[in-house]
Amino acid sequence: MMIKKTISIDMDGVLADIQRHYLSHYFEETGIRINENDIVGLKEADCLPDQTAVLRYLHTPGFFRSIPVAQDAQDVVKELQNYYEIFVVSAAMEFPNSLLEKREWLQEYFPFISWKNIVFCGNKGIIDTDFLIDDHLKNLDSFSGKGLMFNTFHNVNEHRFERLKNWTDAHRFFVADLQNKMFN
Amino acid sequence: MMIKKTISIDMDGVLADIQRHYLSHYFEETGIRINENDIVGLKEADCLPDQTAVLRYLHTPGFFRSIPVAQDAQDVVKELQNYYEIFVVSAAMEFPNSLLEKREWLQEYFPFISWKNIVFCGNKGIIDTDFLIDDHLKNLDSFSGKGLMFNTFHNVNEHRFERLKNWTDAHRFFVADLQNKMFN
Repeated sequence: MMIKKTISIDMDGVLADIQRHYLSHYFEETGIRINENDIVGLKEADCLPDQTAVLRYLHTPGFFRSIPVAQDAQDVVKELQNYYEIFVVSAAMEFPNSLLEKREWLQEYFPFISWKNIVFCGNKGIIDTDFLIDDHLKNLDSFSGKGLMFNTFHNVNEHRFERLKNWTDAHRFFVADLQNKMFN
Repeated sequence: MMIKKTISIDMDGVLADIQRHYLSHYFEETGIRINENDIVGLKEADCLPDQTAVLRYLHTPGFFRSIPVAQDAQDVVKELQNYYEIFVVSAAMEFPNSLLEKREWLQEYFPFISWKNIVFCGNKGIIDTDFLIDDHLKNLDSFSGKGLMFNTFHNVNEHRFERLKNWTDAHRFFVADLQNKMFN
C-alpha cells in the first residue's frame, strides 16, 4: 500500500468565500454594492471604501461562522480525500473568537474531515505536509513543502507560486499529480 | 547568526498541571482527597474512583481556563526562549470549547509567547520542529523530531523516550543541548 501524500488547505479565501462575505457585509451596512471585479488587485485589509470595515468585520462575533463555503470546495476536497490525507490549516490564532466559530463551520460544511486533521495556528512554517493550498503569500513563503496559490482578488499580481484558479482547477492539478506518481 | 532550534511544548500535563486540577475537582465534588501518589501508573481517563469524572471535567466549561500552571514552567520557558524558538502545540481540537479557554490561559500565563507560535491541532504528526515535549506516548510516537516525555502519573511505565522529570530537569536537558551544539 502506498502512503498517501498530505495536503494542507487554508480556510479563509480557499475553503471559505470570504471575499463574497466582505462584499455582502458591506452592502448590508451601507447599501452600496461593490462588484468582485472592482476589488481585483487591492489588498485584503483595505479592499472596501471604508478602510476600517474589513478589520471591524473580522472582529464581529458570528462573522467567521457565517462565511459561505467556496464553490465546489466540498465536492473536490471529499474526492481528494480518497487519494490524499487532507488537513485544514488556518491561521485562526490571531482572532481568538474565531476559534470555536471556525471549528463549528468545519463541522457543518466538512464533516468528513476529522478533528484530528484540523490545525489552528499562527505561523504556518512548522506545518510539515507535502502541499499547502493558500491565498496568502506570507503563508506560502514560510511553508517548506510545495505551495499552491489559490486565486483571489488580493493575490493576482503574485507569480512566485503555481496558481490554482478555483476548486475545479485544484482538482485538475491533483489528478495530474496522481498520474505523474503512477507513471513515474 | 545561528538559526534557533525549535521546541514544541504540549499544554495539559506539561505547561498546565492538569493532574492537580483533576484531584482538586474531585475533592470539591466528593470531599474525598486523593493523593498524587495514589494515581501513579493509572491511565488518565480512569485515574479517579468515579470513572466518568475525568471525561465529565474535560467537558465542563471553565475547566481548561482554570488549570494551575505547572511549577517552574513560566521561568524555564521564558529562559529557553532566548536560545530556542518556542511553540505551544496542544491537541485542543477534540474539545472545541477548550479552544478559546486555552488561548486565554496562554495569554495569562505565557504572554511572552506570540499567537504566531501557538498551534491547536489534533494529530501532532504534521508538526515540524526539532523537539516535542509531551506527556502522551501517542503524540511522541507520531512526531518526526526528537520526542521528550514529560513525566506525569500516567506515563511512568513508558521508557521509549528520554524523560524530563519536571521543568528544572527540562532546563538541564536544554542547557546540555546548547553546550553540545557549541562544542561540536
